[in-house]
Amino acid sequence: MAVIRQHDLIKMSKKPLILVANDDGITSRGIRLLVEIASSIGEVVVVAPDSPQSAMGHAITIANTLRLRKSDIFGDIAAYECSGTPADCIKLAKHHVLNDRKPDLVVSGMNHGSNSSISVLYSGTMSAAIEAAIEGLPAIGFSLCDYSHETELDHCAVWIKNIILEGLKKNFPKGVALNVNFPAKKEEPIKGVKVCRQAAARWEEKFDERRDPLGRNYFWMSGFFINEDKGEDTDEWALANNYVSIVPCQFDLTAHHVIAQLNKEWEF
Amino acid sequence: MAVIRQHDLIKMSKKPLILVANDDGITSRGIRLLVEIASSIGEVVVVAPDSPQSAMGHAITIANTLRLRKSDIFGDIAAYECSGTPADCIKLAKHHVLNDRKPDLVVSGMNHGSNSSISVLYSGTMSAAIEAAIEGLPAIGFSLCDYSHETELDHCAVWIKNIILEGLKKNFPKGVALNVNFPAKKEEPIKGVKVCRQAAARWEEKFDERRDPLGRNYFWMSGFFINEDKGEDTDEWALANNYVSIVPCQFDLTAHHVIAQLNKEWEF
Repeated sequence: MAVIRQHDLIKMSKKPLILVANDDGITSRGIRLLVEIASSIGEVVVVAPDSPQSAMGHAITIANTLRLRKSDIFGDIAAYECSGTPADCIKLAKHHVLNDRKPDLVVSGMNHGSNSSISVLYSGTMSAAIEAAIEGLPAIGFSLCDYSHETELDHCAVWIKNIILEGLKKNFPKGVALNVNFPAKKEEPIKGVKVCRQAAARWEEKFDERRDPLGRNYFWMSGFFINEDKGEDTDEWALANNYVSIVPCQFDLTAHHVIAQLNKEWEF
Repeated sequence: MAVIRQHDLIKMSKKPLILVANDDGITSRGIRLLVEIASSIGEVVVVAPDSPQSAMGHAITIANTLRLRKSDIFGDIAAYECSGTPADCIKLAKHHVLNDRKPDLVVSGMNHGSNSSISVLYSGTMSAAIEAAIEGLPAIGFSLCDYSHETELDHCAVWIKNIILEGLKKNFPKGVALNVNFPAKKEEPIKGVKVCRQAAARWEEKFDERRDPLGRNYFWMSGFFINEDKGEDTDEWALANNYVSIVPCQFDLTAHHVIAQLNKEWEF
């Protein structure tokens, strides 16, 4: 007979606590889908920006004040809208809203727009997940490779639920946040999930220069994505081939392989 | 007789082009020091925020317009102030200000405040340097472990100049930005330079809740730094022992060591 330990029983019997954040703001369709799925699994607390915070990277608010307001947008589900960035939302959730309650999982998104490859660095969605990982919490960011806020989301739901359940059941790697991206809806169903590395791709910007009504110039940033990394183990390959991509992300930026070179070649 | 190749001669004879950015804004003392040192070495172009952008992480401006104005703050040195983030400054510099001219080096800072350890993720100073590295440019971010804008900077000058010269002379590792932090000025001089890894430390936040004149609550984020990583190969150790710390930083966030675990243990 298998020995059942008491803390396993407790773990199985209590509803998991899931913290939900995002960067598109508390009213976006992506977060609604995530809240719906998470609340079918456990107790949900939402702390999300009160306005869109896309491309905020890992910004935090230290030179300004922060507002936090309770919201009834999700009915009975505890929800708060925050004036700050996605990373602020996680910090406020952990240290203020949840007090000493530790979430079993933090989920962020679902973002309207891809956060694959280099976009993970600019992503507010992933900054919330990575902030949670820094705080020692299991965390997953979800994004859909379709910028339209009217796009189909339903093809992601079953995959999101399964990934959340796995995240709650399995040993979650420490100091890691999962970056999950979904291909836009196509005629054929999603083929499956690939655990990937971040493709070595980048954005090439263009600046559209215009004149305002007073004759002063201003710019819109736009750009196109350049991927010369054809590796079949990359997130870009998985998404282009109609797979869900999962990149485990960590927050040690050290280029460990370069330390020896600098010590040997550079004179300080 | 050593063979002197023509492109070596050209390289040695022309003044290097150094792009200077920061996150404290174009009027800060830290950037003035960097411009002074860089202009003693090469031709300098400055593109820096028109207002403080601390803790902006890798934010970029895609949902708003950007302004760029020429500034005479540095006399004859070409300088532009930008309404955007530090990463915006690099993108605008590369794709608009410099047109097809490729800087030999990008320097960012010197930041008033430490960007060691986990702070590299929140740092606007380092986001400018990392953005440059993404764009394929050699880049160095400089920060001083002293938040006061009135603090002494002069003890850093000789080290900054030497690190810039080494950056221009030596093979700069590809896809890497150097995160250079200086200890605050002490009675004894700086002991030297250590090439380090990012310490596994983090910030523990506190939220100071207050009431505005209308009786509504708001928060100030503050916190304290927790470092349980006692490794003598870390930036925190170097700085605590009065050394300059240099961490080579890269932008592939993939936790490569976790891919096999997820493939083996998780069911998707």
